[in-house]
Amino acid sequence: MSKETIKNLEALREAMRKVNVGAVIIPGTDPHQSEYVNPHWKVRDWVTGFTGSNGTAVVTMNAAGLWTDSRYFLQAAEQLQDSGFDMHKEDIPGEATITEWLAEQMGEDEILAVDGRLFSIVKANQLEEFCGANGFRFATDFAPADVIWTDRPARPMTKAFVHDVKYAGEDAESKIDRVLSAVEAMDADAIFIPALDEIAWTLNIRGADVECNPLVVSYLYLSRDVKVLFVDAEKIDADVMAHLKAVGVEVKPYDDVQKWLKKEVSTSTTVLLDPNKVSDTLARAMECYKMYGASPVTPLKAIKNEVQIEGTRKAMERDGAALVRLWMWIEQMAPTGTVTEVDVAAKAIEFRSVSDMYRGESFGMIAGYKEHGAIVHYSASAESASTLKAEGLLLVDSGGQYLDGTTDITRTMSLGNPTEAEKHDYTLVLKGHLAIGRAVFPVGTRGSQLDALARIYQWQEMMTYLHGTGHGVGHFLGVHEGPQNIRLNENPATLKVGMITSNEPGIYKAGKYGIRTENLVLTVPAGHSEEFGDFLKFEALTLFPYDKNLIDLSMLSAEEVAQVNAYHAEVRARLTPYLNADEQAWLNAHTEAI
Amino acid sequence: MSKETIKNLEALREAMRKVNVGAVIIPGTDPHQSEYVNPHWKVRDWVTGFTGSNGTAVVTMNAAGLWTDSRYFLQAAEQLQDSGFDMHKEDIPGEATITEWLAEQMGEDEILAVDGRLFSIVKANQLEEFCGANGFRFATDFAPADVIWTDRPARPMTKAFVHDVKYAGEDAESKIDRVLSAVEAMDADAIFIPALDEIAWTLNIRGADVECNPLVVSYLYLSRDVKVLFVDAEKIDADVMAHLKAVGVEVKPYDDVQKWLKKEVSTSTTVLLDPNKVSDTLARAMECYKMYGASPVTPLKAIKNEVQIEGTRKAMERDGAALVRLWMWIEQMAPTGTVTEVDVAAKAIEFRSVSDMYRGESFGMIAGYKEHGAIVHYSASAESASTLKAEGLLLVDSGGQYLDGTTDITRTMSLGNPTEAEKHDYTLVLKGHLAIGRAVFPVGTRGSQLDALARIYQWQEMMTYLHGTGHGVGHFLGVHEGPQNIRLNENPATLKVGMITSNEPGIYKAGKYGIRTENLVLTVPAGHSEEFGDFLKFEALTLFPYDKNLIDLSMLSAEEVAQVNAYHAEVRARLTPYLNADEQAWLNAHTEAI
Repeated sequence: MSKETIKNLEALREAMRKVNVGAVIIPGTDPHQSEYVNPHWKVRDWVTGFTGSNGTAVVTMNAAGLWTDSRYFLQAAEQLQDSGFDMHKEDIPGEATITEWLAEQMGEDEILAVDGRLFSIVKANQLEEFCGANGFRFATDFAPADVIWTDRPARPMTKAFVHDVKYAGEDAESKIDRVLSAVEAMDADAIFIPALDEIAWTLNIRGADVECNPLVVSYLYLSRDVKVLFVDAEKIDADVMAHLKAVGVEVKPYDDVQKWLKKEVSTSTTVLLDPNKVSDTLARAMECYKMYGASPVTPLKAIKNEVQIEGTRKAMERDGAALVRLWMWIEQMAPTGTVTEVDVAAKAIEFRSVSDMYRGESFGMIAGYKEHGAIVHYSASAESASTLKAEGLLLVDSGGQYLDGTTDITRTMSLGNPTEAEKHDYTLVLKGHLAIGRAVFPVGTRGSQLDALARIYQWQEMMTYLHGTGHGVGHFLGVHEGPQNIRLNENPATLKVGMITSNEPGIYKAGKYGIRTENLVLTVPAGHSEEFGDFLKFEALTLFPYDKNLIDLSMLSAEEVAQVNAYHAEVRARLTPYLNADEQAWLNAHTEAI
Repeated sequence: MSKETIKNLEALREAMRKVNVGAVIIPGTDPHQSEYVNPHWKVRDWVTGFTGSNGTAVVTMNAAGLWTDSRYFLQAAEQLQDSGFDMHKEDIPGEATITEWLAEQMGEDEILAVDGRLFSIVKANQLEEFCGANGFRFATDFAPADVIWTDRPARPMTKAFVHDVKYAGEDAESKIDRVLSAVEAMDADAIFIPALDEIAWTLNIRGADVECNPLVVSYLYLSRDVKVLFVDAEKIDADVMAHLKAVGVEVKPYDDVQKWLKKEVSTSTTVLLDPNKVSDTLARAMECYKMYGASPVTPLKAIKNEVQIEGTRKAMERDGAALVRLWMWIEQMAPTGTVTEVDVAAKAIEFRSVSDMYRGESFGMIAGYKEHGAIVHYSASAESASTLKAEGLLLVDSGGQYLDGTTDITRTMSLGNPTEAEKHDYTLVLKGHLAIGRAVFPVGTRGSQLDALARIYQWQEMMTYLHGTGHGVGHFLGVHEGPQNIRLNENPATLKVGMITSNEPGIYKAGKYGIRTENLVLTVPAGHSEEFGDFLKFEALTLFPYDKNLIDLSMLSAEEVAQVNAYHAEVRARLTPYLNADEQAWLNAHTEAI
């Protein structure tokens, strides 16, 4: 019991004791229900020592647990040692859920307390029902971190900037109008938006408040008459202020949001709230008529306009050129035995940074050599990093934020002497990736219907991968965004023209290697049938060769060979203008017809 | 306005006037919410003249409409001529739904009345909410057909019989016990079962009350202490009575069910009711504690035991042999120009009837020659029937009820000189059918995930088919049963070992031909992976050759060719013992390796 965090846990329990709280749940999110969280809100990390992206801490007087999913079982077990927290596995049959565990731990009339700002309306309601059904009391105003976390990092204060309409393709006035029209079509008068990517998209503003996400921590209230952005004043310079003023958006202090919602939104106003995004605390504060419904910004934001699409195509060209340099460097350095996975990540940033459109990584790079590649969300550290050699597979999943688009690409390359097993598995993954890449499907098709096209080659050999085949991607915004995806699970969102989605099947052989091949693809029209209506297909946006050395040609159909060759020809044509003679020679060799 | 049914519509309106009813909805189902309905309950047919399997009549004082789906647009338009009813299209964007139409037609405080016996709890609740929201009143006790339909056919009175455990594979005692265990696991004490196939399965009884469905019209109430079958006494002979008595099931009059439920089920009993199956009328009658949940009989019934599976395999052999004779006859007769689609149906019954296990068709045969094949639910009549010739495609979708299993098979054959287009489309359908047939998939997979495997070959050419790829099939029971299916639409039911499902992609070229290829397939284990758990696959139960003359070999992969040849070898081996020398020669020729 020597962990630094132990005294934080003790301070928390002391705070609980003072107000007679029996149990507390601390999620890993922020007041905006973000996936990526600024250090200021990492209360869960502070009290547990666990740093994974998904994890929920639960503390009673006598016990403490951290719930996380299979990606983090190893990491959590290590980081929670001597922390006072036991690890609990999420989504594993037979393992107790948080509420099952609490039902055992808590006594009648005990109080379960949370910081309601960190729980969506839906999640808080579920906990309230749980408490009601089990004879516990529920409180949503317990936020002791504000007091007991004495060296808490300050709230992020990066400068906001305007995302120029020459990149965004649509001005903020038009977007606000479309959002409000959608709100009105749902019979509401106004919308309150806490989601940072929705605010950034709607107002054409960006910032750097959240790692890998060009966001401005803020809240937005929109009606025809009243438009208010709640944001710390020091972030807003004259340019941004003028931009906001031009579209009728007033700026008020971030900390005033709750008070303002309570006082200034009249009870005769119907405000649309997304119950999965608005926090319980703010919803409770509002005395207006609350209409609950999915935010209309999500589907609007998912459809990219022609300027965004053309920008993303250009970003992909720059990104592909940077990766040519990265992989040339890897091929050159691996035989020297002097560089590690961590160096690969640094080099990727270096090569991408050459572009003045580059604004940082779109997520922390995954560079997994040999057995590390089999850890799906592997993050190399100075201690863990493997040294590359002229052998084995290297999986690199990385992406960049450019002013004109967001990239996300995975390639797996052989650093020397590929084995038959490596080639076989690489080709199975490639066949699934190609099947999605060439799929034609009717308007109205959901990603869950296409998912099996990527998996069936593996299924036939009783293999699969435990992650989705694809996720939506933003435009100079989040690398994960909805509503669409391509997954085993049902999701009613259909694939629409203008959406950008990843196509990334994989195979993971524990202790040996991981293989994943990922392109971002754009949904485009495929054509019209008199009888069956409109059909869609995907255009590959990502531009980088597959590893020909890892393809088992005997496993590919003539159609698949032609597809690889056509893609490689496109990659060569589009990247060549960005490359010097050496680089062009490398690309030519890597894109020769198979 | 010369239709026979006009006076029925007038009698209905007179009955409405008497009790001040403004609008009435007459569905096409019976008090058991059956898909197939005995003539006694065909009130909708009686008042409209429309005979399709799906259609709902709505009548007000000034207007009358019939809602049906695309399968029946042609038929309904014809049958509704001069009936006083307008046809309305279901599931077509822009077409008014029944409630949208009623909202326009009805005035404030008017009464919408239905016969609550013909509406499930869910459907009646929806109508009640609709009325509440629109200021209408809702009544569920309007059943004028009992009085005004003077020549109404009597309730079916066929003899019930015991389905021998040598076919059922599990005795009724065991089934009742498993059903009650499932009921208790849901914290209920009892279950009330109105679904005829669930009753037949649970008690191992069959009858002939419903065309193509070996069912006994009845209701079943089950608890550990009280087990009652409500059924007309004349159906139950001494054998059946002894069988029921042996498992503790008491017999009471069918007409007593409502009164008994009201009086005899105590308020302290918790009774499980499937809200999609139990009628509003009976649910209202019950004063016990009602627990709403999906019937546990559905998933139990869907998993066939070894005896049922072996029986179905044998039934398929008999069925395949009958179809060899049918197709030999068709090939012989078509060139003579003397037989029609209707004759094909009669011959199929004749050839199947050779088996003393045969108990009739499992559905009305679809024999569609040339352009008739493109009408998905075509039913040939003496007037419409085409005469076969030695050319064009003939689609035959038929099935038999055997004591040891239910069959359902579609084959499309060329009667001479297949065109390139016919071969191309046949092969596209076959590729989808083969993809489902050889699919391996993890435990937990839903049919909606596999559906695209059958469609993708057509999608790539911007074609599709507007019906499901597969439906569950019963054992000497309904040819359509849940919970699983293989469809575009999401259905959370997963495919489980022991389920029987159809695999039937198709292509329909209006005015030219229809192609469908259907096997029933059994879900079986495919194997176990240390890392990814258990995998499943399908075993083809149906035994009959594809039409080699329609296969474009250039479109098949080596794997697909091998799959066809292996299937044909199995068909040959299994059917040969049932055939004479001529028939064997025919089968050998039709199953030669391609």
